[in-house]
Order: sequence, then C-alpha cells, then structure tokens
Amino acid sequence: MYFATYKYKGIEEVGVVLKDKNTIIPMREIFKSLDKKTPATMLEFIDLADDELIDDIKNALGKNTYEEIEKEKVKICAPIPYPRRNLICLGKNYLDHAKETIGLPGGSDEIPKFPIYFSKIADPAIGDGDIIKKHSEITDKIDYEVELAVIIGRDGINIKREEAEKYIFGYTIVNDISARNIQRKHGQWFKGKSLDTFCPMGPYIAHKSIIDFPVELDIMCKINGEVRQSSNTKHFIFDIPYIISDLSKGMKLKAGDIIITGTPAGVGLGFKPFKFLKPGDVIECYIEKIGTLTNKIEE
Amino acid sequence: MYFATYKYKGIEEVGVVLKDKNTIIPMREIFKSLDKKTPATMLEFIDLADDELIDDIKNALGKNTYEEIEKEKVKICAPIPYPRRNLICLGKNYLDHAKETIGLPGGSDEIPKFPIYFSKIADPAIGDGDIIKKHSEITDKIDYEVELAVIIGRDGINIKREEAEKYIFGYTIVNDISARNIQRKHGQWFKGKSLDTFCPMGPYIAHKSIIDFPVELDIMCKINGEVRQSSNTKHFIFDIPYIISDLSKGMKLKAGDIIITGTPAGVGLGFKPFKFLKPGDVIECYIEKIGTLTNKIEE
Repeated sequence: MYFATYKYKGIEEVGVVLKDKNTIIPMREIFKSLDKKTPATMLEFIDLADDELIDDIKNALGKNTYEEIEKEKVKICAPIPYPRRNLICLGKNYLDHAKETIGLPGGSDEIPKFPIYFSKIADPAIGDGDIIKKHSEITDKIDYEVELAVIIGRDGINIKREEAEKYIFGYTIVNDISARNIQRKHGQWFKGKSLDTFCPMGPYIAHKSIIDFPVELDIMCKINGEVRQSSNTKHFIFDIPYIISDLSKGMKLKAGDIIITGTPAGVGLGFKPFKFLKPGDVIECYIEKIGTLTNKIEE
Repeated sequence: MYFATYKYKGIEEVGVVLKDKNTIIPMREIFKSLDKKTPATMLEFIDLADDELIDDIKNALGKNTYEEIEKEKVKICAPIPYPRRNLICLGKNYLDHAKETIGLPGGSDEIPKFPIYFSKIADPAIGDGDIIKKHSEITDKIDYEVELAVIIGRDGINIKREEAEKYIFGYTIVNDISARNIQRKHGQWFKGKSLDTFCPMGPYIAHKSIIDFPVELDIMCKINGEVRQSSNTKHFIFDIPYIISDLSKGMKLKAGDIIITGTPAGVGLGFKPFKFLKPGDVIECYIEKIGTLTNKIEE
C-alpha cells in the first residue's frame, strides 16, 4: 500500500495511492466508512496506523467503492512536508561512495567504522515535480544524493536489532541536496544540507508490508537522463536494523521521524572534474518498489 | 519582562514572571483582560508576540490586578519544551574554548574562520531542577556547556546584520550537555548532543526589551559550587548579528527557532585530566539578567 499527501481543490489531504499509481482514494472517505475521525496530516495518520488499522484499511478498500481521484488532478506534495524534527541523516553509508570521497578537501580519509549521523532541515520538504532553488548568491556547487528514507512508525528507545522492523512505518525517497561549498565551510554538514527547497521527498510512502525485510532495493539517480548513481540498498555499510538499534541507544526515536540512509557512489563531487548541478538540470531519483522522484533546478 | 512555561494544578501553561522572580501571572489572565484567545504554549505566544502585544501586556500589568501564583507552587518547565525544529548550535564560538580543544582527538586544530553549525534534539528540553540521565551504558564522558540561547521571534531569510535584533524574541540559557565519546565516535556531533534529557533550558525567557544590544552578559558555570566556566558574551568569535545574518542566508529562520551560541573555556574536556560529570553532580548555569539554570546528574 502506498500513501500520499496531495493538494486537491486547494486542500492538503492524505490518501491511498492504488497499484496503478494513477488513482488516489482520499483517506477521509476510508475513515468515514470506518466511522473514525480522519487524520489531517500524514504525521497524524502514522500516529494512528498500527497493524490493525492497516488491515482495516485494506479490508475496507476490498469491499467498498470510494471516490477516486485521478493523479493528474492533484498536486503531489512531499509525504511529510513538515516533519516534527529535522531528518536524521547518515553520511558515507555505501562503501563505493565512502571511497569516492577519500582525498577530497574537508573529508575524512577513512571508511567509517561507525555511522556518521547528522541532521537536515525540511521546512517544508518539497514534492515530486517541485523546483529546487539554485541559491546562486551563495553556491555554485549543488549536488544530488538519492537516498532510501525510513519512516519510523512508533516511539522507541534502546531498540534491539531484531525488533527494528516493528518500529518502521514505511519507506520513501529523499534527494539529500547539498551545497558542497557550504557543507565544507562550516565544518559540520548541517547548514549546507538545509537550504530552502533542499529536501525533495516522495513521491509516496511505501508501507512496510510491501517491502521485504531485509531491504534490498535497486537505487538509481539520473541527471538529464544520464545514469549517475546505480546501486542496491544491500550494499549499506550499516544496515537498517543496525542503524535503528544504534541511533536509539539513549535517544528516543519517535513516530514520524525520518532517517535517510546515505547515498551510493556517483555524486557530482565524486567526478573529476566535479559534475555539480546546473540551472535547469532534471534529477530523477528512483528506488525499486517505491517509485521515481523528479525535480528540476531553478533556471 | 520574563516569560515562563510551568505546570500548575496539573496543567502546563505560560505566564509572566514578575521582577521578584518569585511570582507568576498566568498568561490566560492577561489575555482574558485583553479580550484575546490565550496561547496554549510558549511557541504560540511567540507567534503572536509583536511589539504591540508586548506593550499591551506591559500596560495591562500596570493597571490591572491579576491572580498571582507563587513560584514555589508550580513546576518550572523548559520555556520551550518541544521546539518545532532541532536547536541550531554553534561550536567553538569563544576564542578561549576554541583554544582549549586544540590537540584533542577528533577535533580540528584551528580557530574557526567560519561558524560551525550543527543541531541538537530537545524532545523534550528539561527545565530548571530536572535530572539529567547518566546513560551509563553508553557513556562515562558527559560534559557541560553553558550557552546563551537566542529565541527567534519572526520568520526571516537573508536577514541583514543591522536588522538582526528585529528577528529576536528573547534569550534564555541552554546547557548543551554532550557525551564526548559519542560526539567523537560518529564524526558529526549530532548524536552525542541529542541523548534524552541532554537539553536543560531555562529557567525563563528574558524578553529582548530588557537586554541591551549588542548583548554583553556575564556567563558562568559551576559544578558542585566550583566555578568552571566564566566569561562574557562580548567574547563571541561570531556575534549575534553575524550569526543571524549568516545562518539565514538561503535558509529561513522561523519564529520559535532556538540558536545556542557556543560555550566559553572550562568544559570538562578542557582539563588535564578531563573533568567529566559524575552521578549526583550539580551543574549551575548562570547568565547575567537571565538567571540560573540548575540541574543534577542522575545518581
């Protein structure tokens, strides 16, 4: 099952995207038939969405007829446009990407022995088809990073590896857009990753029930149609159970938290000479079973 | 004028702390007399609190008699227990502190030429008198850092230095508690600064109208009564107008954002041998005109 946040007739709401990826059933319709109060946002929906509710929704979709909205008639938003906290990000979590950054100024010359955690502002995260601002007064070194995003489904602290999946709600794609000069200038990576519009997210959340665990999904990024990044999430240095267990040591993860799991080799910074994004460039981020997130750099 | 978040008869609410620092006037009383809807939280209050409203509150306090609550009868909470986004933090923003960290493993051996920005989770921030968890399974290197926190009062992007003060709501104290082993282990500083209870904040917010600009305030931290840190915010490497202007380049600052401005020399990490916090230690963070924030490490 796929979930989307979208604008329809001027109102932002949450819905289920059908398998054809072309039709949306508004959550308000489903909740009405379940005689429950409709969650106003994806975050409110995640707070409610235990296994029982997911089953109820599946059953309801099987036996009822609902209003169907064609995808073309809505504006797709980021699934969680305003996360409650910054995104939690991993740096250098694919071996080939860790290797391509060795020797670059401002980086470490080692393959990480422990996960590198930092955070990114999404305020708001932008959706499929939205424009990434070029911020040309402060950077000419904008880079792309396709990443699998794990959405946490319920609060937990000191989570065991073998219980990690229970704490997941689902998965989406985040393009961890980065201004490399700013990322480097400030030593810590936070600001260079947090400029306005630097967090494309979506197009949908794939519920965990449709993604096999452990998660082994092809992941790819194209710039103007040219494949730049191509890998599989089985090549993580630190896998999802490790990350959830390690991150939650002493730090509570909360329903709605978004963890982005690092990017494979092929970022602009990894080429000689560098291949940074230019005005008008189109970035397509693809992850198997989730979809494609397409955004363009402001002309 | 000072503002507090506190629990009284089981309800969390916002109030004005009178000059004796011993009496609180509930905001609900003041707003009722102004015939306005009471903000439920400090964040809602900050959203409303333009210069006109602050003047109205001052006038109302001058001419009306309100219910007064003795401070002893309430539980003081962090002024903003659940910030809308992570705190934005500065590393090494006092020359003497930057110097004391030179040569330490995992650090840079330079005085910063540009601000070091990172983020910290406060979920929730704890209040004056609350206990900091010792997290003994993952750290024995907990450190203190007294910091002046700047609370942003209204949204702004690309803010000019000379207009920075207009974007400030007020000031409070944050103790940027850090697990030094975790901060170092993960390369980026986020996780070691974000363990549960690692964000003591308060006791109150001092409105900007009672703090002269530029901000030159004595700042001090005592451990079990012994002075460890003692400086003045005039010794910032990057001052408040610079920080607000620089941070807001390409990244919108929002009402309610909390920027913590770095800590002076004298942290536990700066001593040979190190002086990390032990169970039962009492930390007093003092900033002139704001107050004292006292917390204890779990026994």
